[in-house]
Amino acid sequence: MKKSIAVLGGDRRQVWLARLLLDDGCDVVTWGLEQGDAPNAAPLDQALAARLLILPLPVCRDGKLVLPLTDSQLDAEQLWSRLRYDQLLLGGMTGELSPRLMSDFGLTLLDYYDREEAQVANAVPTAEGAIGLAMEAADQTIHGSQCLVTGCGRVGRLLAQRLQALGAQVTVSARRYGDLAWAAVWGYARLRTDQLSGNLEKFDMIFNTVPALLFDAGLLCQLRKDCFLLDLASAPGGVDLDAARELHCRVGTAPGLPGRTAPRTAAAAIRDSIYHILEERGEPI
Amino acid sequence: MKKSIAVLGGDRRQVWLARLLLDDGCDVVTWGLEQGDAPNAAPLDQALAARLLILPLPVCRDGKLVLPLTDSQLDAEQLWSRLRYDQLLLGGMTGELSPRLMSDFGLTLLDYYDREEAQVANAVPTAEGAIGLAMEAADQTIHGSQCLVTGCGRVGRLLAQRLQALGAQVTVSARRYGDLAWAAVWGYARLRTDQLSGNLEKFDMIFNTVPALLFDAGLLCQLRKDCFLLDLASAPGGVDLDAARELHCRVGTAPGLPGRTAPRTAAAAIRDSIYHILEERGEPI
Amino acid sequence: MKKSIAVLGGDRRQVWLARLLLDDGCDVVTWGLEQGDAPNAAPLDQALAARLLILPLPVCRDGKLVLPLTDSQLDAEQLWSRLRYDQLLLGGMTGELSPRLMSDFGLTLLDYYDREEAQVANAVPTAEGAIGLAMEAADQTIHGSQCLVTGCGRVGRLLAQRLQALGAQVTVSARRYGDLAWAAVWGYARLRTDQLSGNLEKFDMIFNTVPALLFDAGLLCQLRKDCFLLDLASAPGGVDLDAARELHCRVGTAPGLPGRTAPRTAAAAIRDSIYHILEERGEPI
Amino acid sequence: MKKSIAVLGGDRRQVWLARLLLDDGCDVVTWGLEQGDAPNAAPLDQALAARLLILPLPVCRDGKLVLPLTDSQLDAEQLWSRLRYDQLLLGGMTGELSPRLMSDFGLTLLDYYDREEAQVANAVPTAEGAIGLAMEAADQTIHGSQCLVTGCGRVGRLLAQRLQALGAQVTVSARRYGDLAWAAVWGYARLRTDQLSGNLEKFDMIFNTVPALLFDAGLLCQLRKDCFLLDLASAPGGVDLDAARELHCRVGTAPGLPGRTAPRTAAAAIRDSIYHILEERGEPI
Repeated sequence: MKKSIAVLGGDRRQVWLARLLLDDGCDVVTWGLEQGDAPNAAPLDQALAARLLILPLPVCRDGKLVLPLTDSQLDAEQLWSRLRYDQLLLGGMTGELSPRLMSDFGLTLLDYYDREEAQVANAVPTAEGAIGLAMEAADQTIHGSQCLVTGCGRVGRLLAQRLQALGAQVTVSARRYGDLAWAAVWGYARLRTDQLSGNLEKFDMIFNTVPALLFDAGLLCQLRKDCFLLDLASAPGGVDLDAARELHCRVGTAPGLPGRTAPRTAAAAIRDSIYHILEERGEPI
Repeated sequence: MKKSIAVLGGDRRQVWLARLLLDDGCDVVTWGLEQGDAPNAAPLDQALAARLLILPLPVCRDGKLVLPLTDSQLDAEQLWSRLRYDQLLLGGMTGELSPRLMSDFGLTLLDYYDREEAQVANAVPTAEGAIGLAMEAADQTIHGSQCLVTGCGRVGRLLAQRLQALGAQVTVSARRYGDLAWAAVWGYARLRTDQLSGNLEKFDMIFNTVPALLFDAGLLCQLRKDCFLLDLASAPGGVDLDAARELHCRVGTAPGLPGRTAPRTAAAAIRDSIYHILEERGEPI
Repeated sequence: MKKSIAVLGGDRRQVWLARLLLDDGCDVVTWGLEQGDAPNAAPLDQALAARLLILPLPVCRDGKLVLPLTDSQLDAEQLWSRLRYDQLLLGGMTGELSPRLMSDFGLTLLDYYDREEAQVANAVPTAEGAIGLAMEAADQTIHGSQCLVTGCGRVGRLLAQRLQALGAQVTVSARRYGDLAWAAVWGYARLRTDQLSGNLEKFDMIFNTVPALLFDAGLLCQLRKDCFLLDLASAPGGVDLDAARELHCRVGTAPGLPGRTAPRTAAAAIRDSIYHILEERGEPI
Repeated sequence: MKKSIAVLGGDRRQVWLARLLLDDGCDVVTWGLEQGDAPNAAPLDQALAARLLILPLPVCRDGKLVLPLTDSQLDAEQLWSRLRYDQLLLGGMTGELSPRLMSDFGLTLLDYYDREEAQVANAVPTAEGAIGLAMEAADQTIHGSQCLVTGCGRVGRLLAQRLQALGAQVTVSARRYGDLAWAAVWGYARLRTDQLSGNLEKFDMIFNTVPALLFDAGLLCQLRKDCFLLDLASAPGGVDLDAARELHCRVGTAPGLPGRTAPRTAAAAIRDSIYHILEERGEPI
């Protein structure tokens, strides 16, 4: 018999997640997603009775469940107190919430985002979304442009490959020789991170993926006036935005890119992650 | 000594063209581009005295020069009557205007767009612009999506290659075996144009490049509800828009894509084309 | 009812062709291919009675059928005199043989190689074979090497794309601006054919596809000593082999590459071409 | 002042290494490489006096230095006893030799192969060499073939990417969901390692990179007769060669591929690795 699942709040990713689970034949209800046209909306009481509860990514902010697609509010502490130890909670970026829920409420909260496959899959919509933003911002095509990707993590690698595939001249910067060797075998030009200064003038587009203050005033003032710098690093990001404003740099930021530009793809990544978690727990859906 | 050049009207492509010619050291003035922040704006009299006059793409509409970036107007017939036989006129999509200017006014008007290299170069911003529009329209990434490209011309070939490079499953449809063989060697799935019917349901995105009414009601009603169909064929296009509206198909159109999304790249293509024309006439710039 | 087909002589491509036709359920006999381990070997008399006769590529040399895989010989004129007007003959590179067979013997000989799709499909094994030869000849990887592809025809385009995909720095040379524009949109560096001289020193590998004497002593003496030059142009080729020997250039030639390195793939191209011919004649197999 | 360097034995990689170091302006002598036409051959005494000694990869076998390119022999223990503590030794795959040399002889032996960048760089000639072997072994092109790459390490990833770039349909097998997610974002089909059995029949070529006995009789008997299986795993490899012989499987092995097919590229990787070692020790060359 299929488990009952409730998708509780979240953004368009959770709406799509509910649809995808339904397509797979799951028994799904949703709550807190009505402005996203989610299927099988149910009253809160019914949703809270499900065997499996899927929570937003991130789960809560300022003590409340993240609920951008409804006018309702839901206090997190009240929610926890209404759940039972034999329900399974799945949320994104749960961090310190998981151990606290276990110790304070005896609840099991697992993280569907904190898995290699989820983060890899999420890097695709991030990379594509970044390309879409760059296309919009620039007066020229990606093809033929000089692009710098700082950082060699998941997003950096995927983004560099796709920029190159579209015809850009791609340079990748990294700190470690191993990463620079990877950049070489994929065919990119290379810059050591400590040699960015003095070598930035040729770039038409720069994509930062390094989650540390890399682009300070010293580097920003070296950018060409028409260069577009997109910061893809998670908050607080890698660009000194105040300095950028003063220097009239063209800087874009892109929080929550996957959810905004390709919620369906991001939802499929969450779904796969959830399936793998359940499989590993020996309770396949 | 450098020739004097006047860029007369047009859109952001012509603004960038003026900048690029300046960068190359040409003696350039502009007229009718003031809202595009064009360099070296000059009074009409001075512009009309240039040795080389660069006109819009297309040159005129309803008897007037195409002037989207100014409040001024310029009657085409009056313009021709003010020019001399020893000036060289260059415009885009000049069609029947060229022979008429010669016979009626003794003026030489050449087409900077009607050259293989100009159209090939222009296919790049068209293909990229199409990808940008599809990214915006879809809830999923290009990566992993099922894409159909109808037609195997310049835009079709470039677009198919870039979609594949971004990770899409690409099918190309064409009529001729030779074109289908090309599709095979580039690694695309293939459909004969006469077999589109009955095979459309799997596609998430369809890009039409065939300049003939291909997507009539009979085909349109076979599209999935969430399929995004982008018509890239020049006017009147390849999609029955009335039927599409009735059937609630998601159809996008994209007139003037290169000029809108990558005017600088489109301008570089025009510049190269102009240089080649001048070179072939034995009067390099 | 299936047509009876005889595959008469040829090399390993024809052996594979017989196998592929059998796989498709055709009624096939073979003659003159015994050293290639061809299926359904039959006596000549039986083979000549087939409705469809498939001849080698090229058909004959010095008045005899091309028979590298048998000790038998078959005089071409004798062969023609034993055939009937209601049989269909299909051969490769038939050239002037076709009209002569019709006028002298009333026989219909069609060319399975002289079709766009056959030549496109054949360019794939040629390009791959060239890459295999270059890998063998060079002390370095394709990745990271400087490669020049002269000519922008079918083989040139496919070869350039695959070299780039393997990580080479690819330059394409061509004469026409349209071809050079294509090279640009695919992301290659470009050289005008008349500017090869003086620009050859950087190349590690050069692949000539131009069927005209391009690499004469004047160009050959500009190659680096360790440069590998592979001539892919059909006979008489594009390299002055005598001069190359004197100058100690490292030159490779590659006649009949598809048949040697990928006979099965080449056979599939011939099969498709034959099917298209029969379809267009209204007598599908 | 440049350090004096001696390249002592090894194969064609060490020959090229000597040449590349010379090109960089180093003061180099070689010993034990005369059949490889190495530059600056010197007597052993002189070579042993160098500040930096570069040893083979691997350093010794059966108590002797690895010397395939000379008729001389050199006993390893004797060699160590002739060296001084202020010389720096660099060798490949030094393993337990390094600590023993330090404890027994006070000698510093560092490994130029045991670094991420060296192994990444080495994966390129391995991947290319594998493609060259597959091209030779198969009757069909890589393009259009069904290829399986088992394992998602350096070689697996590079090989899969290049096979796909050449037009193959690529499937990657791995054990971990994270690796399978990477395979998905690069656009490959995926198989879990434990699901290989029953899914092998479609493959034309299989490349094993997993260093464990994966292809036992049970899997081998599932391969198509014309399937080519290339074992790229380091010794003892991942294929039961005895079973393969009995089952008449077409199996290739490829020990020392980089050194054999692209010694110059492999040498460049070693050189870079040596430079990085010296830089990190604060004694740049």
